[in-house]
Amino acid sequence: MLSEIQSPEDLKKIPVHRLPELADEIREKIIETVKENGGHLASNLGVVELTIALHYVFFSPSDKIIFDVGHQSYTHKILTGRYGKIDTLRQKDGLSGFSRRSESVHDAVDSGHASSSISQAAGFAQSNVLRAENGRVIAVIGDGAMTGGVAMEGLNFCGQNHLPVIIILNDNEMSIDSSVSPVSRYINHVAVSELYRKLMEEMKRPFKYAHMPFNNLFKDLFNKFDKGIRVLIDYDNIFTQLGFDYIGPIDGHNIEELIYILRNAQKELTKPILLYVKTKKGHGYMPAENEPVRYHGVAPKFYLPKEEKRSYTDVFSAKLCELAEKHEDIVAITAAMETGTGLSIFHKKFPNRFFDVGIAEQHAVTFASTLAYNGLHPVVAIYSTFFMRAADQICQDIAISNAPVILAVDRAGIVGMDGETHNGQFDLSVFRMFPQMTVLVPGDGRELELMLEWAYSQKKAVAIRYPRDEALFLDIEHPDFNEETPFINICDGDDILFIVAGTMLNNVMEAVKAAQEIGVNCAVICLRFVKPLPIDKLLEEIKKYSRVIVVEENISNGSVAQELSLNMLKNKIFVQMEEVCIPDRFIPHGSRKVILEELGFSKEAFLNAITSR
Amino acid sequence: MLSEIQSPEDLKKIPVHRLPELADEIREKIIETVKENGGHLASNLGVVELTIALHYVFFSPSDKIIFDVGHQSYTHKILTGRYGKIDTLRQKDGLSGFSRRSESVHDAVDSGHASSSISQAAGFAQSNVLRAENGRVIAVIGDGAMTGGVAMEGLNFCGQNHLPVIIILNDNEMSIDSSVSPVSRYINHVAVSELYRKLMEEMKRPFKYAHMPFNNLFKDLFNKFDKGIRVLIDYDNIFTQLGFDYIGPIDGHNIEELIYILRNAQKELTKPILLYVKTKKGHGYMPAENEPVRYHGVAPKFYLPKEEKRSYTDVFSAKLCELAEKHEDIVAITAAMETGTGLSIFHKKFPNRFFDVGIAEQHAVTFASTLAYNGLHPVVAIYSTFFMRAADQICQDIAISNAPVILAVDRAGIVGMDGETHNGQFDLSVFRMFPQMTVLVPGDGRELELMLEWAYSQKKAVAIRYPRDEALFLDIEHPDFNEETPFINICDGDDILFIVAGTMLNNVMEAVKAAQEIGVNCAVICLRFVKPLPIDKLLEEIKKYSRVIVVEENISNGSVAQELSLNMLKNKIFVQMEEVCIPDRFIPHGSRKVILEELGFSKEAFLNAITSR
Repeated sequence: MLSEIQSPEDLKKIPVHRLPELADEIREKIIETVKENGGHLASNLGVVELTIALHYVFFSPSDKIIFDVGHQSYTHKILTGRYGKIDTLRQKDGLSGFSRRSESVHDAVDSGHASSSISQAAGFAQSNVLRAENGRVIAVIGDGAMTGGVAMEGLNFCGQNHLPVIIILNDNEMSIDSSVSPVSRYINHVAVSELYRKLMEEMKRPFKYAHMPFNNLFKDLFNKFDKGIRVLIDYDNIFTQLGFDYIGPIDGHNIEELIYILRNAQKELTKPILLYVKTKKGHGYMPAENEPVRYHGVAPKFYLPKEEKRSYTDVFSAKLCELAEKHEDIVAITAAMETGTGLSIFHKKFPNRFFDVGIAEQHAVTFASTLAYNGLHPVVAIYSTFFMRAADQICQDIAISNAPVILAVDRAGIVGMDGETHNGQFDLSVFRMFPQMTVLVPGDGRELELMLEWAYSQKKAVAIRYPRDEALFLDIEHPDFNEETPFINICDGDDILFIVAGTMLNNVMEAVKAAQEIGVNCAVICLRFVKPLPIDKLLEEIKKYSRVIVVEENISNGSVAQELSLNMLKNKIFVQMEEVCIPDRFIPHGSRKVILEELGFSKEAFLNAITSR
Repeated sequence: MLSEIQSPEDLKKIPVHRLPELADEIREKIIETVKENGGHLASNLGVVELTIALHYVFFSPSDKIIFDVGHQSYTHKILTGRYGKIDTLRQKDGLSGFSRRSESVHDAVDSGHASSSISQAAGFAQSNVLRAENGRVIAVIGDGAMTGGVAMEGLNFCGQNHLPVIIILNDNEMSIDSSVSPVSRYINHVAVSELYRKLMEEMKRPFKYAHMPFNNLFKDLFNKFDKGIRVLIDYDNIFTQLGFDYIGPIDGHNIEELIYILRNAQKELTKPILLYVKTKKGHGYMPAENEPVRYHGVAPKFYLPKEEKRSYTDVFSAKLCELAEKHEDIVAITAAMETGTGLSIFHKKFPNRFFDVGIAEQHAVTFASTLAYNGLHPVVAIYSTFFMRAADQICQDIAISNAPVILAVDRAGIVGMDGETHNGQFDLSVFRMFPQMTVLVPGDGRELELMLEWAYSQKKAVAIRYPRDEALFLDIEHPDFNEETPFINICDGDDILFIVAGTMLNNVMEAVKAAQEIGVNCAVICLRFVKPLPIDKLLEEIKKYSRVIVVEENISNGSVAQELSLNMLKNKIFVQMEEVCIPDRFIPHGSRKVILEELGFSKEAFLNAITSR
């Protein structure tokens, strides 16, 4: 059936009773694709029926269907003309694993970060109101993303302005990791309560509160009760209090029920409606149903036995546990990234000292600050791209008070397949902006260990950034770690000075070795402190050369190379300077290796740079 | 009485019945101080009794009393040993207008940005739990700040972890401006409803829901009803659903009632408690009671007739209204800063096209992005320091899609009396980080007008940053504004080249004029585009000089000077470079003028720089 669907219009020609068959076909295709290419498996399998129903009822692109984060939009992509390209998912120049406006007119937004869909829906709906246009606006958001602060800001706004939006709360009973928040507990509470019985009682009396929603939609639904459709209506919960009509729970794998309810919601859409849909992560694929965290996001060919490579995340994880054994004041915090940041082991070993706050990076950082004021030493491990959401809190609550908190910035630099929304290309600039921050960049695995040890010994705010990559343990000397050795002189050479901030060190060292064989001698410095930058000491080194190349896996603005350059010119140290960095553009998806090569971070590229003049 | 209170211990010696008298004395002192020094008037007058009650019942500093934002902490300062210094409020080297840990052991946090107090309370409470310590933790947060996303993240976390915190929701029926959100509407609803009657009915039956809070505290309170204390209890609202016990509304100006309830809350503090307190902004000072927005924050000697100086905010406001008359697609958005950003006039003229989203910067930015996708041209006006809270949204929702949104960055640079939490010293670096952004910096009022006009004509994301200052209209030529004239050559001269980004242009021009008289000839360039930076054209100019001074009211990391320097060294343009900028530290409060002088932005300082070698 699938190959005949070139657009949502084609979908609408299929009779409802054949849609479950279509769902099976899509599910099969998703499993097949993700097995090869990697990607988000469990979440996509959970929303196959919901997505079919949405495109069956609504008219994209004049109706806007927004998937929060966008990681669950594979069915949407398949149904909107991209079935033929789904094999290219997450491949360089292929389909993105998220929503991209450049990819299809049906992708209403560019997404990748959580909790934004309600505000996005508000904008579409508000502009429709202002321009007297008719398009419907639907946002699909998971229970995990619902805990992000901006989601609540969006709900509040929609309620305040009575915006006609349909927010579909897709409850798969977990966020990325199993954070059980009161929001989701409350959701579950209403789902399993005796509301059905109460409701029927209530119906016999006039409504208790004057402000409760009661319109044709609800009447229709009440009528449906007798026909056995499992729809319950709660008339006083967190969403109704924010001004939403609330309908749920709805069986998210029953296409017929979904279509019925969406059609009614569409008809009655004069104010915000929240549809509470229950789905099962990994639905239809037993391994994913059983282990949804493991199958949330998977690597290409995940079913094959894996070569066990130790990542920087693993190094961080092991070292942190070692420190935490000795020091009881260490606590660890993450924001729905327990597995990804390597904190699962810490969690198991020190359950009372571990906090997964859910998708709530702002809270994670501010929470850490007062833990620190009170004598604990918190380690906040979050991906570089998601730390951006807490930039203000890092400044206001960590930097101003110089709170002794360790910010473990995972997945810094190029992340690969997740693309432009997920690259960690800004963190070095952001952390280096704030006064009083100390920012460290390890050149290899051993450096990361030393930095963690040192950071713990300090009574101040320290950020350490490292990439999503195999941890290398280089054959170099590692002098004691402190401010007196803010960088390592890896090797000497008269021709060019490399100053390397980060794990591209290995590629630089290999290029330098190869250059030696053809008679070019380069010196290499491995930077440890990128803030405060050891300006005077670096200038002393730079003076000796006629050409300097700074290597950092970050954008140029706010980089080490820029700060050094200004200081060189101030001090009339006139040496030619180059920088290998992430360029000033958003970098689309593709494997980390390929993209790093493309951006000039490979051994070959460094060798070229050396020999180019 | 006041002069005898050196600490909260002294306060506790005063009998309860004399506390209202103390409140009057404090109120008088606050009015007297703010009349002279400026500051937050209405909000401080609103919490005099509440603060007295808090310090009467709790034991700071082992108990942590956190004031959200901290702008309402004057009574707290007076009662915690700072009465003698209150005259120095907001003066250079005097008391801060916010909470500062460096100022007193009773200031539990450094604050200034809204909505953080619940997460801060969570950190204190969680560390007490982990370390088996006994201190109580209380956060006082206004109804305005409660709508900020991180506040909801904090509530969610406290509920999830059953943390023993007391959150006092201080409802003065308004945030800075009158944003009526569903959260506050709901609060009002429960406050004025017939709950009292219902409650008494309910008491006669077993409780309806098993999960409802019901403990000794409540029993006590129920007993109090007959004694006429006006306490109502709502047993199913947004806070109870998040896991809080809820008590309210409480009369925030009745010290006896407050003390009674706080004592009970203190005794029963085994899980999160939300106390809903109603206060009146400006209580006890009629002008402020009548016009609380006007008296929210006031200038020194606000009661004297004001010299009417036109600010950059006024220029922005007038130009925006002019454009909006012609162009119906312009809409304006702010986040509880309607008056401060000059949008009140726009609001009056175009009520349907104006959106004050409340304290919710993240939502403001994301909301703007989809308004823009749908064909509108939104202008988001927010203070520089508060834009930081939406850094991630600016990147993800504005920059990636290059949405045609104008970000009007008000109060960029040094803000003056509000100090380290409020200075706009980072925005230029932040906005310049993101690919695809266009960032403009006006050198005077006319430039700001031209930039707004041009930004509207573009189909891309444009940020314009300007300070909180008197708008100057300089006697310079203003060539047509476009990418072809990315800077203005103000004057020629052979000795030194000034490159000025921003309104320090006037001081530079005056210094250059003075230098001319003593035979030093400087050229001056007024930069318009700071991103994309017109590198090639600037390098052409720079080449002609032996000394360049870049002036920008921003930190150095990520600055124009740094980007230029790297490009100079890349291209072997070896010219001495200096930068006048905001140094790498947090700048405490003091008048904008004095601080700018101190940092080297005055005419005299520029003249010194010119003649220093």
